[in-house]
Amino acid sequence: MSKSKIFSLPVRVYFQDTDAGGVVYHASYVNFMERARTEWLRAHGYSNAGLMKEFGTVFVVRSLKLDYLRPALLDDLLDVTAQIKDIGRSRISLLQSVCRNGEVLTEAEIHLVCVSLASFKPVSVPEVLRERLKV
Amino acid sequence: MSKSKIFSLPVRVYFQDTDAGGVVYHASYVNFMERARTEWLRAHGYSNAGLMKEFGTVFVVRSLKLDYLRPALLDDLLDVTAQIKDIGRSRISLLQSVCRNGEVLTEAEIHLVCVSLASFKPVSVPEVLRERLKV
Amino acid sequence: MSKSKIFSLPVRVYFQDTDAGGVVYHASYVNFMERARTEWLRAHGYSNAGLMKEFGTVFVVRSLKLDYLRPALLDDLLDVTAQIKDIGRSRISLLQSVCRNGEVLTEAEIHLVCVSLASFKPVSVPEVLRERLKV
Amino acid sequence: MSKSKIFSLPVRVYFQDTDAGGVVYHASYVNFMERARTEWLRAHGYSNAGLMKEFGTVFVVRSLKLDYLRPALLDDLLDVTAQIKDIGRSRISLLQSVCRNGEVLTEAEIHLVCVSLASFKPVSVPEVLRERLKV
Repeated sequence: MSKSKIFSLPVRVYFQDTDAGGVVYHASYVNFMERARTEWLRAHGYSNAGLMKEFGTVFVVRSLKLDYLRPALLDDLLDVTAQIKDIGRSRISLLQSVCRNGEVLTEAEIHLVCVSLASFKPVSVPEVLRERLKV
Repeated sequence: MSKSKIFSLPVRVYFQDTDAGGVVYHASYVNFMERARTEWLRAHGYSNAGLMKEFGTVFVVRSLKLDYLRPALLDDLLDVTAQIKDIGRSRISLLQSVCRNGEVLTEAEIHLVCVSLASFKPVSVPEVLRERLKV
Repeated sequence: MSKSKIFSLPVRVYFQDTDAGGVVYHASYVNFMERARTEWLRAHGYSNAGLMKEFGTVFVVRSLKLDYLRPALLDDLLDVTAQIKDIGRSRISLLQSVCRNGEVLTEAEIHLVCVSLASFKPVSVPEVLRERLKV
Repeated sequence: MSKSKIFSLPVRVYFQDTDAGGVVYHASYVNFMERARTEWLRAHGYSNAGLMKEFGTVFVVRSLKLDYLRPALLDDLLDVTAQIKDIGRSRISLLQSVCRNGEVLTEAEIHLVCVSLASFKPVSVPEVLRERLKV
């Protein structure tokens, strides 16, 4: 999987994701994106529980920016993407989107920081993971 | 799909489903079960949006009973089942469970009522759907 | 606070609690009830974090049973109650409800078990808490 | 309430808001902020349901940007603020934050658009509400 490769996870919209406005609730997209990031990580060989157990580290969200372009609806089958933008010592920047039939509904940029589970202080992204993400 | 057939949906556990106790939050199982019921319905040819549009009806939860036997954990891949118990005029009773590698973590019995979207009053389960569920 | 005393927490309904059916999503009531139970516990002098730190214990939900009688709506101001039913060695049974202007919308019975944070095995309810709950 | 006045809503952290990392889940802050915005609107005389009924309009989130500075924890009592930044024809920009004992944990800028409930197309912010927000 190359740096420019876009990972995509299909996500179905259920009642639990919607609100009384009749569309998907704005915070639900943040949940969808966490699912896609986790599967993107798994596609590179690591689970969240695995990172915690093997390295004592966890990725936390340092910042996120979402643009809501069009609403998703109940029963929609969405594609939620994740694509690496760049990697620093302890930071990973990702571009993510939520699409329906190729149309972008929501765009996001998300900065993760690798922190120690014990101190919540930033630590280096484990080297073996960094290598896999770079390929 | 026969009455005794058990429908099953794979569900992955993400951070969003867990709590600071380190396990899956108890209300998250209720969400997992809604996803499985919706896919069970879809396997019988109907979506929630479709039922609303075609019949002006929606299934609402009239009661639920959950037994939590063992906790699910971050990154678990769960099987969430749905199986019809019986169908009345406007009510459908379902047995549901959340399993991990064949071990039952949570068991549930859930009563749905088919209501008019306009009045939220009980109405008959649409005949075409009832026939499909009976088969 | 006597055993028969009913604790009540006001809870406002926001978009995040509703779904595309136009009413409060059924799992949101489970969240409302966790909030009320937590404040009921706090009214007896203990927080969840405090129980974990002081005794190494946490209350987990062993079972729950909810009856949905009438739907709550966006912007409703609800009263979410908690009342002790009985206490065993490691188990506490609670009656809870969600009301609007004195009308019961949802009724629940919930069984909690006091478990060790380390093993998730049942342990005795801390004596000092038991005494306070009995009064 | 002047344009520069900061509205603040106290929000308690429950298990439902946390994740297995032991801290508040990042999307939960988005929920906290929706609660504060709604109460800020109510402090100006309007509920969401009221806006829908009286004007056929609803505010939707067009974009949001969050910076996570420090984690909130189980049982924390937070102050969630909302402050108007500027108002356009159909857009309202807000600054929001989540604080604990005066320390900023999360900062956000959020753009809302007033849309028609029927078409989800942008419409003017109702004049009577605009006047109240300007004062």
